[in-house]
Amino acid sequence: MEQPITFEKYVEIASASVTESGGCPVTALISMLQGKWKSPVLYAMSLNDIVRFGELKKEVPGVTNTMLTTTLRELEADGLVHREQFNEIPPHVEYSLTEKGKNLFPVFYEMLKWGLKYAE
Amino acid sequence: MEQPITFEKYVEIASASVTESGGCPVTALISMLQGKWKSPVLYAMSLNDIVRFGELKKEVPGVTNTMLTTTLRELEADGLVHREQFNEIPPHVEYSLTEKGKNLFPVFYEMLKWGLKYAE
Repeated sequence: MEQPITFEKYVEIASASVTESGGCPVTALISMLQGKWKSPVLYAMSLNDIVRFGELKKEVPGVTNTMLTTTLRELEADGLVHREQFNEIPPHVEYSLTEKGKNLFPVFYEMLKWGLKYAE
Repeated sequence: MEQPITFEKYVEIASASVTESGGCPVTALISMLQGKWKSPVLYAMSLNDIVRFGELKKEVPGVTNTMLTTTLRELEADGLVHREQFNEIPPHVEYSLTEKGKNLFPVFYEMLKWGLKYAE
């Protein structure tokens, strides 16, 4: 079981991390998740262990090829998504969440709880 | 105590909310938090019950008057911050977090845990 952390402890950790790195890890993560398609794509990926581009496109309504390509490249650059190319015949590419990507789900879960409570 | 929710239940809630509203509450919240100064300002506000503009500016290193004004207006428009004007002599304005704003802290807390684990 994880130890519960008090609000005071949270503030202490937050203050220390802001001071030490000169940049807030929370701000960095929010910036990483910016963009209309980041969270829908991560969400769709969480429903599959491994997914191909075409399948993913079907699961994210409204996304275009270009937007999906850009989003996947950015998620890959940030270490949230793993891209594996198979040089078989026909060649294909498989996408999956990394551990770093999967571990975002407690964040999304808290966001979803908040969103369901407050969003219109 | 809150009921723990399984990942399957989370997925069910997420799917339903995406389908029902036509927009994902997670995406809406990420969009609300976008901007360089949103999370530093919310963080600084969490350290005070009530804060004045000048005090807040001191607690958010690097922010300008214009940026702080814009950020506070956006946070107020989204219902995260309460602004109260006192028409005394001299007149002054006090800012505080709303309940909706305070309830973002479980989100920030999960973000911070993730950030400390993965961010460079």
